[in-house]
Amino acid sequence: MLKGRNLIDPMDFTLEELEEVFQLADKIIENPAKYSKVCEGKLLATLFYEPSTRTRLSFEAAMLRLGGRVLGFSDANSSSVAKGESLGDTIRTVGCYADIIAIRHPKEGSARVASMYSQIPVINAGDGGHQHPTQTLTDLLTIRNVKGEFSNHVIGLCGDLKFGRTVHSLVKALSRYKNNKFILISPDELKIPDYIKEEILKKNNTEFEEVERLEDVIDQLDILYMTRVQKERFFNEAEYIRLKDSYILDAQKMRMAKEDMIILHPLPRVNEIATEIDSDPRAYYFKQAKFGMYVRMALISKLLGVC
Amino acid sequence: MLKGRNLIDPMDFTLEELEEVFQLADKIIENPAKYSKVCEGKLLATLFYEPSTRTRLSFEAAMLRLGGRVLGFSDANSSSVAKGESLGDTIRTVGCYADIIAIRHPKEGSARVASMYSQIPVINAGDGGHQHPTQTLTDLLTIRNVKGEFSNHVIGLCGDLKFGRTVHSLVKALSRYKNNKFILISPDELKIPDYIKEEILKKNNTEFEEVERLEDVIDQLDILYMTRVQKERFFNEAEYIRLKDSYILDAQKMRMAKEDMIILHPLPRVNEIATEIDSDPRAYYFKQAKFGMYVRMALISKLLGVC
Amino acid sequence: MLKGRNLIDPMDFTLEELEEVFQLADKIIENPAKYSKVCEGKLLATLFYEPSTRTRLSFEAAMLRLGGRVLGFSDANSSSVAKGESLGDTIRTVGCYADIIAIRHPKEGSARVASMYSQIPVINAGDGGHQHPTQTLTDLLTIRNVKGEFSNHVIGLCGDLKFGRTVHSLVKALSRYKNNKFILISPDELKIPDYIKEEILKKNNTEFEEVERLEDVIDQLDILYMTRVQKERFFNEAEYIRLKDSYILDAQKMRMAKEDMIILHPLPRVNEIATEIDSDPRAYYFKQAKFGMYVRMALISKLLGVC
Repeated sequence: MLKGRNLIDPMDFTLEELEEVFQLADKIIENPAKYSKVCEGKLLATLFYEPSTRTRLSFEAAMLRLGGRVLGFSDANSSSVAKGESLGDTIRTVGCYADIIAIRHPKEGSARVASMYSQIPVINAGDGGHQHPTQTLTDLLTIRNVKGEFSNHVIGLCGDLKFGRTVHSLVKALSRYKNNKFILISPDELKIPDYIKEEILKKNNTEFEEVERLEDVIDQLDILYMTRVQKERFFNEAEYIRLKDSYILDAQKMRMAKEDMIILHPLPRVNEIATEIDSDPRAYYFKQAKFGMYVRMALISKLLGVC
Repeated sequence: MLKGRNLIDPMDFTLEELEEVFQLADKIIENPAKYSKVCEGKLLATLFYEPSTRTRLSFEAAMLRLGGRVLGFSDANSSSVAKGESLGDTIRTVGCYADIIAIRHPKEGSARVASMYSQIPVINAGDGGHQHPTQTLTDLLTIRNVKGEFSNHVIGLCGDLKFGRTVHSLVKALSRYKNNKFILISPDELKIPDYIKEEILKKNNTEFEEVERLEDVIDQLDILYMTRVQKERFFNEAEYIRLKDSYILDAQKMRMAKEDMIILHPLPRVNEIATEIDSDPRAYYFKQAKFGMYVRMALISKLLGVC
Repeated sequence: MLKGRNLIDPMDFTLEELEEVFQLADKIIENPAKYSKVCEGKLLATLFYEPSTRTRLSFEAAMLRLGGRVLGFSDANSSSVAKGESLGDTIRTVGCYADIIAIRHPKEGSARVASMYSQIPVINAGDGGHQHPTQTLTDLLTIRNVKGEFSNHVIGLCGDLKFGRTVHSLVKALSRYKNNKFILISPDELKIPDYIKEEILKKNNTEFEEVERLEDVIDQLDILYMTRVQKERFFNEAEYIRLKDSYILDAQKMRMAKEDMIILHPLPRVNEIATEIDSDPRAYYFKQAKFGMYVRMALISKLLGVC
């Protein structure tokens, strides 16, 4: 039963609970009109203590397409809520007005704190560099719908694997399924943290390999998850110049990739995927945004207990 | 008849008109579903020339829960309306789009000016330190629903009674009812203004008493209305240190209070109510926020003439 | 067929297509209730990269009064969309959430760029000093409804005719109809650009005349379109002092005007129309705002193909 629950960490849900969300998402994709009024009379509060237009619009579109309504704020600066009041008090007040909360906050752990004070379900829409569970659900629903299953994939994660929270969450999530192999593609400075390797990958007996250059492994991949590599993250300029092109996906590299490899990206992208790839049928990063809306529709419906 | 009227000052309404609003609020509380579409097709414009997230969300939730819709702005800085255009022109334009306006403005008297130019009802959502009539309606509905009547109460007002507009409005409002007694609890620097004593309390033959320390009188109170005391308001540090704890409500003081005393607060609170009190059944300040939404639902419905 | 089309430049539509929009607007004005649900289930995204409250509220009111819903942002500063992401990527993402986009952007040509990347209809809500087609549609619908036709008018355009994009668009639009005459009233520094005279007025054989003072010609006008003259635009102070009163419409000048001359203004006005004129039955600038909402209702319905 997901009714009344919170989603703070992508691992809060069991595989069965995730499956429940994805199955509802599938039904919504198949027949959106059938679900266009299931949240009638329900209010979503979007409490965005830092701006994140993409995420906010995705949540709002999800609620509106379910027939619900939305209120909230998009920036704490133009919000009196932030001034002097504790998060707990704000949450208790908003709980008087709304039926469900999506909260974005720059401080790690704040979504969990919010859920402790809330009488209504709380969804973490990003708390600092910590968690962003609906992005993980988005990634998973895309993989499930395009690839048909969560198992038996070779997944390339490319770019900044050190700081990228979406990457960490995706590793955790996909390690719960059988027979996946990760190829971790990053410069030495931006390798995935040790605790992910030790406590997640090895504990789950998930195969993985660490490499430095995308071109060396792209031909093996079923799924390529791209993230941005910021120049400032490198130790020195020479190293950056030597490697930067390895983390830019272009038509030349795509010629080496499998016919059915899919490209994912949490967006926004800067230049790590050349725009010449946008029309490649293997580019799924914009379709992914649509799956993001659908998975939020399913999630909201489940937490509100209307479906 | 409240249809087409404005609410600028809490005293704009007669006791009978207030009663009309509260009775509708009661019906809405009893059966919200019955009222979930009464404002279908109606638009509320929330014109917030200064941010006040709590008040804005309360208005928006109220309108959305009546089936109406909302448009507006939450901050004049990100609004072109503020640039060079007179308030009258803005109001006349917004009157072309919406059916009712809730306006928040830093300048005293601006809501009254707005109502003079408006073809549609205007609700004052706070004009500087002047008036905030829907907060008063919120306070009244809470007292009415929890205490059953507006008469025969000993009401303690505690904290900054000099600058607190919600306190002034509440004194005015409750002085219209019989057999209430006010105990005004504040440091000397922050005593209630003379005009309130002379023109309101004495004129209405309402009993009152001025004291310095909450602990001395808390046992007599039926209602305790807390407000914040800001350090900057004190004449000197020594005085502040001597008195500050008298204006903080904690479990120790609550042990002296009546079993059925209720605690109100306009929120946001800072530290004037210790969080240990939040779970005390006499703490009504969060429930008050819910009454605030309901009373706005009733008010909007009445001014639009849909109920 | 307007379904699926964009509106970037007011000249994008043929006269027949414009007529289609205006006829629908008329039907909506006659019976708004009939159209109050035609956009049920549809989402409008208002992407305002610079604030323009008036235009944004008009679009939002239009969509809400059609039963549709709205999401978006009112200011790029509080929007993460603006950070580093290309306009094309933003548009493709928003296209996953919404059914139609209204975009306001400080950069000329950006609305056209947006439409090139969009899978859903895009309406230009103003791109820098370039185009603002729904203002032109507003002006046209007002003229059509008050004057009954687009032909046979003497139209005075008064004020800053050099930089005023709404004026340029109106000249282009009305030059497509027969037997209109323009009287262009401006100081020498702010005369209408030569290309408008050469490529629009002369090519269409539209009669025009350039004068310096409103009082000299006001008695000939059927329509007076006022715009603001900013002091900074003048070459020198003496010239400004000599002329400024010529561009302020007051009761004295109105006494010389025809009984059925109508005054239009794109708003906001500053002081170029004295407030004493507001109650003159010939003042149509606030009613114009209402026509603005209706024409946007018609436009949105047509581009979505729901009417």
